[in-house]
Amino acid sequence: MTPNQPTARVRKSPEQVREAVHQAVIDLLSDPAGEDLNIPAIAHRAGVNHTSLYRRWGSLDALLADVVTTRLERDSPLGDTGSLRGDLLAWAGASAASIRTPQGRALVRAVILSMPSNVEARGQDERTEHFRRRMHSIEQIRRRATARGEHPPPLEQILDQLVAPFYLRAIFGIDLPATGYPELLVDRLLGPGAEQGPATAG
Amino acid sequence: MTPNQPTARVRKSPEQVREAVHQAVIDLLSDPAGEDLNIPAIAHRAGVNHTSLYRRWGSLDALLADVVTTRLERDSPLGDTGSLRGDLLAWAGASAASIRTPQGRALVRAVILSMPSNVEARGQDERTEHFRRRMHSIEQIRRRATARGEHPPPLEQILDQLVAPFYLRAIFGIDLPATGYPELLVDRLLGPGAEQGPATAG
Repeated sequence: MTPNQPTARVRKSPEQVREAVHQAVIDLLSDPAGEDLNIPAIAHRAGVNHTSLYRRWGSLDALLADVVTTRLERDSPLGDTGSLRGDLLAWAGASAASIRTPQGRALVRAVILSMPSNVEARGQDERTEHFRRRMHSIEQIRRRATARGEHPPPLEQILDQLVAPFYLRAIFGIDLPATGYPELLVDRLLGPGAEQGPATAG
Repeated sequence: MTPNQPTARVRKSPEQVREAVHQAVIDLLSDPAGEDLNIPAIAHRAGVNHTSLYRRWGSLDALLADVVTTRLERDSPLGDTGSLRGDLLAWAGASAASIRTPQGRALVRAVILSMPSNVEARGQDERTEHFRRRMHSIEQIRRRATARGEHPPPLEQILDQLVAPFYLRAIFGIDLPATGYPELLVDRLLGPGAEQGPATAG
């Protein structure tokens, strides 16, 4: 199972392999040259043998899911701001900063690509569960709000009004408004903040 | 799936080839078995030679863009309902009906996949233009509203509040609410209809 190595190559630890492979995925997805994303291309870019990728992750879907979960958690270790509005603004601010970068947009594409390709064959419960895992930080924000005695909107409403716009803009490469976009989306979701006048969204 | 047929094959007209190829794309994208979407697989499924696909469309991106443009126009020949709200409700109703079917969700995935893979290398203007072509029917609704003397929201706001939720739900296979979803989204976008009380979105 060990790959042939004619020349001496520094053997990577499993954690180093994982990091190199994750980085290769992000690099390939954000590369303007647009190389195809597949296991051999990822292995080549990461400098590891592709058989070890199949052994470790089993499939491209599973590898992408691992990248997404790891990166999303690393990139958004969102602290408790003390209020639902504050937490949602922090989430939206982090998302806005992220999708202003090619790597951030690549991550969104990875989320989409990591949906099982046979998603149609799965039950609604399993699809929803898959999505909930991706929406871990939103669920966390909702739980904290409930624990404070606040009444967060249902997950599906947050999805429609706060999450969906970031996905669509990332997918199509549509620029965000230069300023105030997190506030605009959160005001649309929760109504305008107490310190503000009536909503003039738009 | 069908084995090669060495027996006499009926020669297809260019229009029949196009239809067979388009159908093959939709079939592959909505197939639970999740076969990879590439030119040879599409050619095989359509029963045509893959060299003719490369000759006609040049690339998978271009083929997908053709499928999307054709199908979206055929599936949504939206008439003038006489008001901005009516037109948006009709658009949202057609979108809801569409993404309740595997073929409709496949079409959304085709829209996403048809984004040039080197989208990052293109300028913002070109990305926006690409998206505007996909959003042809929304632009038409906006133009009609303006001609009536109505004041439609900016394209980006319609995108965030009306289009994005359909995309996200199609991508992740999240069921729509059983009833009233078009009305819910349009009310969030325009404010509640004149015949209704104050907004209680959620």
